[in-house]
Amino acid sequence: MAKRNAFYAQSGGVTAVINATACGVIETARRHRGQIGRLYAGRNGILGALDEDLIDTGLETPGAIAALRHTPGGAFGSARHKLKGLKENRAEYERLIQVFRAHDIGYFFYNGGGDSADTCLKVSQLGAALGYPIAAIHVPKTVDNDLPVTDTCPGFGSVAKYVAVSTREAALDVRSMSRTSTKVFILEVMGRHAGWIAAAGGLAGSKAGDPPHIILFPEIPFDRDAFLDRVAATVRRHDYCVIVVSEGARYPDGRFLADAGTTDAFGHKQLGGVATVIAAMVRDNLKLKYHYAIADYLQRSARHIASRVDVEQAYAVGRAAVELALKGENSVMPTIVRRSDSPYRWSIGKVALSQVANREKMMPRSYITKDGFGITPAARRYLSPLIQGEDYPPYRQGLPVVATLKLKAVRKKLPPRS
Amino acid sequence: MAKRNAFYAQSGGVTAVINATACGVIETARRHRGQIGRLYAGRNGILGALDEDLIDTGLETPGAIAALRHTPGGAFGSARHKLKGLKENRAEYERLIQVFRAHDIGYFFYNGGGDSADTCLKVSQLGAALGYPIAAIHVPKTVDNDLPVTDTCPGFGSVAKYVAVSTREAALDVRSMSRTSTKVFILEVMGRHAGWIAAAGGLAGSKAGDPPHIILFPEIPFDRDAFLDRVAATVRRHDYCVIVVSEGARYPDGRFLADAGTTDAFGHKQLGGVATVIAAMVRDNLKLKYHYAIADYLQRSARHIASRVDVEQAYAVGRAAVELALKGENSVMPTIVRRSDSPYRWSIGKVALSQVANREKMMPRSYITKDGFGITPAARRYLSPLIQGEDYPPYRQGLPVVATLKLKAVRKKLPPRS
Repeated sequence: MAKRNAFYAQSGGVTAVINATACGVIETARRHRGQIGRLYAGRNGILGALDEDLIDTGLETPGAIAALRHTPGGAFGSARHKLKGLKENRAEYERLIQVFRAHDIGYFFYNGGGDSADTCLKVSQLGAALGYPIAAIHVPKTVDNDLPVTDTCPGFGSVAKYVAVSTREAALDVRSMSRTSTKVFILEVMGRHAGWIAAAGGLAGSKAGDPPHIILFPEIPFDRDAFLDRVAATVRRHDYCVIVVSEGARYPDGRFLADAGTTDAFGHKQLGGVATVIAAMVRDNLKLKYHYAIADYLQRSARHIASRVDVEQAYAVGRAAVELALKGENSVMPTIVRRSDSPYRWSIGKVALSQVANREKMMPRSYITKDGFGITPAARRYLSPLIQGEDYPPYRQGLPVVATLKLKAVRKKLPPRS
Repeated sequence: MAKRNAFYAQSGGVTAVINATACGVIETARRHRGQIGRLYAGRNGILGALDEDLIDTGLETPGAIAALRHTPGGAFGSARHKLKGLKENRAEYERLIQVFRAHDIGYFFYNGGGDSADTCLKVSQLGAALGYPIAAIHVPKTVDNDLPVTDTCPGFGSVAKYVAVSTREAALDVRSMSRTSTKVFILEVMGRHAGWIAAAGGLAGSKAGDPPHIILFPEIPFDRDAFLDRVAATVRRHDYCVIVVSEGARYPDGRFLADAGTTDAFGHKQLGGVATVIAAMVRDNLKLKYHYAIADYLQRSARHIASRVDVEQAYAVGRAAVELALKGENSVMPTIVRRSDSPYRWSIGKVALSQVANREKMMPRSYITKDGFGITPAARRYLSPLIQGEDYPPYRQGLPVVATLKLKAVRKKLPPRS
């Protein structure tokens, strides 16, 4: 096999461990210098390819690359840029192939969620059609945990751990003071389409009555009366109530709670997320003192409390992507395969991208209790292994050390894209 | 000195390390069984004394007490219950003395902020006046860092570390994606009266241009135009802007930004905190995509990322409180004395409660840059030592282990309070 260059890009929402995957890709490519020449990273993801803005990772020191393993965010820049279908958008795909050709790129590693899996597949198909064969490997990443086939998605385990740990900690705070202060605490978490992250909050408790007392999932149509009854009953019994709510919680008609149509004094749509809507409901109907936290980006960048399992899997899929490419695979994605729940054992598998693109993995109904407010033992069996272990970054002056990269681009060979 | 019993209570907002102080009090008392008989803890703080609901800490195992060191929240329950002046409220103070007398309590350890220092002083004074001498020692605790004399307050260093770490992590996330996604990220933190916690966010950056790009302090009257100009200039230069805002940020006329008077469609006062007000301003004036996080209780319960210095100081003031009492001290508070900034050295001192009660330590203006949006080198010299070191709790099944206490009360000897 002739030696060819490689291109790596980060796509979509970043995570606490997407750079651990980058680390796996780069370190593995460096161990195969006989087959892979230069490894370029796209500045701001796929836009780096379209703009021919190719960061030469070869200029980065081994220490800087190793530090990617404990650096949150997307070190090369990521982008929300979905390439449309080949018919609507053939020019953009052709530009990609043109850039790849100009830089002799024979390997394309695309690190993202469902959209990028689809792009990856199309690049491979178009490359073949245009007589420019390219090994396109999708590398899984998404806090949403919604990629099919793979048992889990790197990025999810660390958000899950953050949410479970934060829920446990905040619940202890609220419980201490409920007699004279806050009775109801609401933690808003991510997950617009599926309740995987909210479900992870359920791990904070280990026996009946433990917080969180209520989880609101996108999968369960929101029943206002049942919810308020449950809050009131919980406060009567425990004197406090901890609620984890998914940003994707919806009314039976499909509207998001967060899009409640409320407006402020200036007629603006109210900005608050779902936590403020829930808080208002508790206040107006139950007259209970509440507090709420909105974790937002903190949850997906919290590398300081990343799951060790997640970090290891993130690195492993990066390494596997390169190894698959070197074995001549194309249009595939490495997957996490669960071998057993307890003790937790996993290995790396692979799946054809045609099986991944445009398919979402929803949370099974069997993971949610009948009443719709909690998680079942089956959910615990699935989720618990994913938050095991800590993988602390090094600290300097009390703060986590992060990678410092040169991020220098190679000289362009093409005119700017039109 | 005759052997007498002791009473310990937690007061006001709890912290990630108030139980480390409880651990220091209890373990030290146990080493002096010749002088201190039983050590009772008030269930729900001072209410436990008023209700004669006295938890017998002697029933807790050494392991459970040791685990307090890494358990957030207030393990015995805390209360927001300010005892008023002796004149208005003599009956409540007399009830305290009555309960102390019934249980032969000769030592009163009150673990809280400014209000509890005042209560502590009054209990000591009234005890003496009623012929029931009691050694009343105040043990400092507050995330607000506003107690006078002591260099810092246990609880603050850990919130500071949480805010600094979270700001650094979230900034990496936002920076990765600014080209196609969020340009402005807002983190709302605690501190209604002083900007200590917001200032800690400034530690996330180490050189000019590093995030956070803007800090909004309660000490600096909010200037909307200057703020918006700074956001726009930051985005022009860096393509993104990270803002840390104190919940206590105010307009020049003293109104909180969070009390902006906006109401939702139902005429309710808008629930969102200051983050939503800032977000709306950015949206309406600059048309930039924003996200915001509200850390709320997560910041003060985040024992998983506590500052080691803070944990050590929290334990040390608990130990010192008992040792001061045993030396015959009364109406005093142990303090943290800074010996040097770099290397950071500290020791334990003491101060008379008359010097503490009803005095707040504000942040010096010299800690805030001239433009009002950042922290100075003097602020860094003060703050940086307080976030040094990590003190990780043990984990089981991926979650932090917390103390499990029996919390059994002793038999009551008095009729209920009227």
